[in-house]
Amino acid sequence: MDLSRYIRDVSDFPKPGILFKDITPLLADPAAFEAAVIQLADHYAAADVGAIAAAEARGFLFAAPVALRLRKPLVPLRKPGKLPYHTHSLKYDLEYGQTELHMHTDGVAPGTKVLMIDDVLATGGTMAAGCRLVERAGGVVVGCAFLIELGFLNGRAKLAGHDVFSLLMY
Amino acid sequence: MDLSRYIRDVSDFPKPGILFKDITPLLADPAAFEAAVIQLADHYAAADVGAIAAAEARGFLFAAPVALRLRKPLVPLRKPGKLPYHTHSLKYDLEYGQTELHMHTDGVAPGTKVLMIDDVLATGGTMAAGCRLVERAGGVVVGCAFLIELGFLNGRAKLAGHDVFSLLMY
Repeated sequence: MDLSRYIRDVSDFPKPGILFKDITPLLADPAAFEAAVIQLADHYAAADVGAIAAAEARGFLFAAPVALRLRKPLVPLRKPGKLPYHTHSLKYDLEYGQTELHMHTDGVAPGTKVLMIDDVLATGGTMAAGCRLVERAGGVVVGCAFLIELGFLNGRAKLAGHDVFSLLMY
Repeated sequence: MDLSRYIRDVSDFPKPGILFKDITPLLADPAAFEAAVIQLADHYAAADVGAIAAAEARGFLFAAPVALRLRKPLVPLRKPGKLPYHTHSLKYDLEYGQTELHMHTDGVAPGTKVLMIDDVLATGGTMAAGCRLVERAGGVVVGCAFLIELGFLNGRAKLAGHDVFSLLMY
């Protein structure tokens, strides 16, 4: 199945000059959505994955079904003020200013092999922060998997040392 | 399976005096997470559902696997500035101030029967706004399904006229 048929280009979003890759047509097609989930999960079926971690919000859309397919725990990474229990947190840079990503301190046990999932690899800032959070808890990142990689933004550079896998490359 | 065993009480979150129902232990247990998804989906298996809609972020965790299990389109409802295409939007009240929920104008075709999913029914404000967005597009809400209902907050009153189904009641 050619998943690129289910990605819509939207011009000038979120600002003029940006061509945004819209995943909602894929979410609207159960066969395409399922194919993406299967391809992401199956790529890591032999990798001895112990948990799946993903940042809100769109990461959850793919991480939840991948976690269920691989029958592994799902660990949500969230913005400040969202996770109720004790958290590890990490500040990271956005284009303008900073933000912070949190993970429950009991989210990942030391030594757990963690597969990181998100919908789009752009500059890699959020994913790099997620990897550092997992590592701070003693986890080992076994891969960073994406539906879409925007290769021209070179997000892989921020994820150096990690296995990076994407289903669609632009 | 007693799903309540996978819900953790966290005191004084998000503010003093509030007992928060934390779903992360359920997400961390693949059998419990899968049981919740199956129970939510199977309750509506005979309901002629045409699409699943859910608001970010935690709603996505349950709506994505339910949509895949029922093999129906998934329609994300998001905060302002997140959906790239043309949207319907609706302002609604929070405890302090207002917020806004958006849905792509092509998210729900007129006449589509839509199952709404979220993790927790609290005051019902976000779910009521989601229902109105679906109806504005000509969709028909066939049910509002939740993992957890906080009955003492009487969110059902805001969803009057809709079928409300929850797996756990507090």
